Amino acid sequence: MTPGAAEAARAIAEGRTTSEAVVGACLARIAEREATVRAWAFLDPDLALAQARACDAAAKPVGPLHGVPVGIKDIFDTADMPTEMGSPIYAGHRPASDAAAVAILRASGAVILGKTVTAEFAGTHPGATANPHDAARTPGGSSQGSAAGVADGMVPVALGTQTGGSVLRPSSYCGIVGFKPTFGTFNRAGIKFAAESLDTIGLHARNLEDIALVRDVLTGREPGRIARLGRPPRVGVCRTHLWHLAEPETVAAIEGAADVIRQAGTLVDEVELPAAFAALADARQAINDYERARAMAHEWRTDRDRLSPAMQRTVANGFAIPDADYRAALAATEQCRRLLDAVFEDRDALLAPAVNGEAPLGLDYAGDPAFQSLWTMLHVPAITLPAHRGPNGMPVGIQLVSRQGADDLLLSVAEWVGGCRGAGV
Amino acid sequence: MTPGAAEAARAIAEGRTTSEAVVGACLARIAEREATVRAWAFLDPDLALAQARACDAAAKPVGPLHGVPVGIKDIFDTADMPTEMGSPIYAGHRPASDAAAVAILRASGAVILGKTVTAEFAGTHPGATANPHDAARTPGGSSQGSAAGVADGMVPVALGTQTGGSVLRPSSYCGIVGFKPTFGTFNRAGIKFAAESLDTIGLHARNLEDIALVRDVLTGREPGRIARLGRPPRVGVCRTHLWHLAEPETVAAIEGAADVIRQAGTLVDEVELPAAFAALADARQAINDYERARAMAHEWRTDRDRLSPAMQRTVANGFAIPDADYRAALAATEQCRRLLDAVFEDRDALLAPAVNGEAPLGLDYAGDPAFQSLWTMLHVPAITLPAHRGPNGMPVGIQLVSRQGADDLLLSVAEWVGGCRGAGV
Repeated sequence: MTPGAAEAARAIAEGRTTSEAVVGACLARIAEREATVRAWAFLDPDLALAQARACDAAAKPVGPLHGVPVGIKDIFDTADMPTEMGSPIYAGHRPASDAAAVAILRASGAVILGKTVTAEFAGTHPGATANPHDAARTPGGSSQGSAAGVADGMVPVALGTQTGGSVLRPSSYCGIVGFKPTFGTFNRAGIKFAAESLDTIGLHARNLEDIALVRDVLTGREPGRIARLGRPPRVGVCRTHLWHLAEPETVAAIEGAADVIRQAGTLVDEVELPAAFAALADARQAINDYERARAMAHEWRTDRDRLSPAMQRTVANGFAIPDADYRAALAATEQCRRLLDAVFEDRDALLAPAVNGEAPLGLDYAGDPAFQSLWTMLHVPAITLPAHRGPNGMPVGIQLVSRQGADDLLLSVAEWVGGCRGAGV
Repeated sequence: MTPGAAEAARAIAEGRTTSEAVVGACLARIAEREATVRAWAFLDPDLALAQARACDAAAKPVGPLHGVPVGIKDIFDTADMPTEMGSPIYAGHRPASDAAAVAILRASGAVILGKTVTAEFAGTHPGATANPHDAARTPGGSSQGSAAGVADGMVPVALGTQTGGSVLRPSSYCGIVGFKPTFGTFNRAGIKFAAESLDTIGLHARNLEDIALVRDVLTGREPGRIARLGRPPRVGVCRTHLWHLAEPETVAAIEGAADVIRQAGTLVDEVELPAAFAALADARQAINDYERARAMAHEWRTDRDRLSPAMQRTVANGFAIPDADYRAALAATEQCRRLLDAVFEDRDALLAPAVNGEAPLGLDYAGDPAFQSLWTMLHVPAITLPAHRGPNGMPVGIQLVSRQGADDLLLSVAEWVGGCRGAGV
């Protein structure tokens, strides 16, 4: 496997390898596997290697990601690469500037390896990416190239975005770590909006250390180790009102993880969410479609026929939603966010299903976002860890969530859980 | 004076005038006054007239703003006009698509008259626009071309954005109505972010009817009259902890308006905000600068020398703010938002200062945003109405605010207040 981000950063900084060697290893993996996985919307090996050589030629590291390759979901603007957003409408489109997150990564020394395949405008109409564990199965979506590319060792870390379940679901399906921070954590300037009150930039990586490193870079912190908890975390098991959707492999993943955590000596209790939370699925549909329609107003007016039928339905539905219904959905959601205070009063994190089960067969349907979008709606930080294998040998993740703003605590709990023997990480 | 938006829409729909005539009248006013006012960053009379003639040639109106000219602050992307954002970095820049709000206006039949002057990236470094009431004075900022153009009769309505006080202050200085809806009301896809947790698209117009019409179009409602209150509104007078900043003309504006409203038979009481609100000014600085720095990460990395010294200071300061301080500022602000519930429990709206006083002399300083940014931080809807003249004959507005989501109520209260004899509207 090609090196992780923190591992590569250390090796480059200590002169044990070069950025060119790390990027070259990623490009070799891509050359070997891209025909099967199809993770990349744009990749120019010469451009990537030129960035790597410039890092290697620098008198001193420019930042904590000096020389480290990063993949960028193709709905982030990039000034030196096309930004096609999974849509023929933007074929060959070249933005004037980098998205904020991309510019910050560059300023930290990262090599922008290429643009990863996204579902059309980060929606539900998928691109051609296959699951690296079984090319007959979806990698999930919409951040499908990012998750598959990281899982396959093509790149150590990649940016994604999550409006429903677009970071955590593909991460879970592909057997990697996916992180959606508290809403608003990473600056969104220069991304294509799906539903702006929900859109959250997130990260895909193969380990928690890499997640923490890129999180620190994007928020401008001094990178450091994830804080060790001085005590076992207090974890609630939250099956949610969607538990009926859980396939046997998800039931096994959650119950197995809960057992292991309990055996490691922590307090584990069962948490039932207030009844109001059951309305969040409908509220999400209203918020997503209403906001999506407006974010797509230009393409809807000028290029409707080049939107997928699924996107056309979403936009048409969104414009048909009465403004008052949308406002009511926002208010109901905000109420649930406040109700969550009590849930986290004496718990550090919740253990919840990440996905219904294994990645489904076929590439036309990227899977059900229900278990991820519940928490996206609540604006809380969420992480998926690979924890289990399903009946077809495919990865099945678990999800950990914490309260708004408690991203540090969530990472600490995740590291604790990952360290429990048998939790699978 | 050229017609208002609702007036023009009715006259065009009823065949009493044409879009070409309305747009022609606006262009004539601009030709007469632009050398003095300098409200426009881009104006192509032929392009505007071509849109107007296309409206006039249409078999039927395409929407409620059929043929009505609208001005667009030059930080909204436009596919057929440059989007320069008040910065030499983007001289001649042509985006690939329209911002969502622009596309929605077009879909409702509006003529996009041109792009109005903005302070550099909607910040504090102003453009060359003068106050139409006295060209030696600032029109305020950052939505300065929008406010001055509307006040001068160059265009009936215009889009602005407010992160601190960029819609209400120039509206107040220029003697027009400025409206900042509840945060998140108008879709922000395709605008340049300043501070994304605060940036709010707002409207400039010469009367409330036009504000309501464009608000309805942008939210997808069936346009209708502002609802009449069946009772006098309950209005609190909220001088705020910034009252020491109020010049005599602002004191007179607030006390005069309070007297008039009281005489009209409504309940008026004095409201003192909880002590925590005094910390919002510092919190705003932290949030604004932290988020601004990240939104400008690309320009900071590639074109730093072409940013104004003021912007360079803001960005440098923003990158120096510890992430933990920023998160603390966000949390303190959210706490104040929740405290506001009690303030509005038995009041419909608050009457508050809109500005320190008259527009200052000179064009280099666009005035103090303190009285507007307090409410922007709280995400509540706010409106300024022209109410008073200062010692130099310059307009001084009053501000009305209501609770989050109560935009309809706020418009109803504003209409009621505006109808009180002597309130000045």
